[in-house]
Amino acid sequence: MNEGALENLRLELRRGSVILAVLGELRSERYGYVLRRALAERGLEIDENTLYPLLRRLEDQGLLTSVWREEEKRRKRFYRLSPDGAATLQRLTDEWRRLNASLEKILDGSTHRSARVSGE
Amino acid sequence: MNEGALENLRLELRRGSVILAVLGELRSERYGYVLRRALAERGLEIDENTLYPLLRRLEDQGLLTSVWREEEKRRKRFYRLSPDGAATLQRLTDEWRRLNASLEKILDGSTHRSARVSGE
Repeated sequence: MNEGALENLRLELRRGSVILAVLGELRSERYGYVLRRALAERGLEIDENTLYPLLRRLEDQGLLTSVWREEEKRRKRFYRLSPDGAATLQRLTDEWRRLNASLEKILDGSTHRSARVSGE
Repeated sequence: MNEGALENLRLELRRGSVILAVLGELRSERYGYVLRRALAERGLEIDENTLYPLLRRLEDQGLLTSVWREEEKRRKRFYRLSPDGAATLQRLTDEWRRLNASLEKILDGSTHRSARVSGE
């Protein structure tokens, strides 16, 4: 398998998590740079070119609100979760927990040792 | 927020998990119907129109192999993980665990009670 295809699968796996992480982190108001740093500190590195379009999309969908405000002499756009966003976050978090419970059962390695034979 | 947009977010969250679940389940050889039933038994319902194209795509990428074989007087296509698929499964599983660890930290509700205020 070429690295491009693996990278695509990895991105597909990450995409949903990134949305959930952004919504979760924006229960507190943050501007882009601080949001990105907060996510990275929790182990989720997100490219600016992924994060900023995602913020605009989530705002267009009514899940986030934003305000421009001056801080340290620079105008910054602060985002936070809307009430709709909070309800959506709750539903997606529930879904995520259900998915994880299913995956844990499926991936539980004890009955499927063959997966590691030809692994890295 | 309209239900269509929420459904799209839910699908984005599921997509990566479904790929991981299919690869994990196909450490043992199965044909489509039995695979679908096994996933459903573990709580992951997948539409036929999602599963069959995904199986073909993963085979095209070299992650699965398939053979046609007769069983109970009907020809069925049996899929299983290839060596490349096993290596990919291992890497995606590692990535999934890392993502979950990050999300657990972010979504840990204790410091962010406001997310529930306007929930369902």
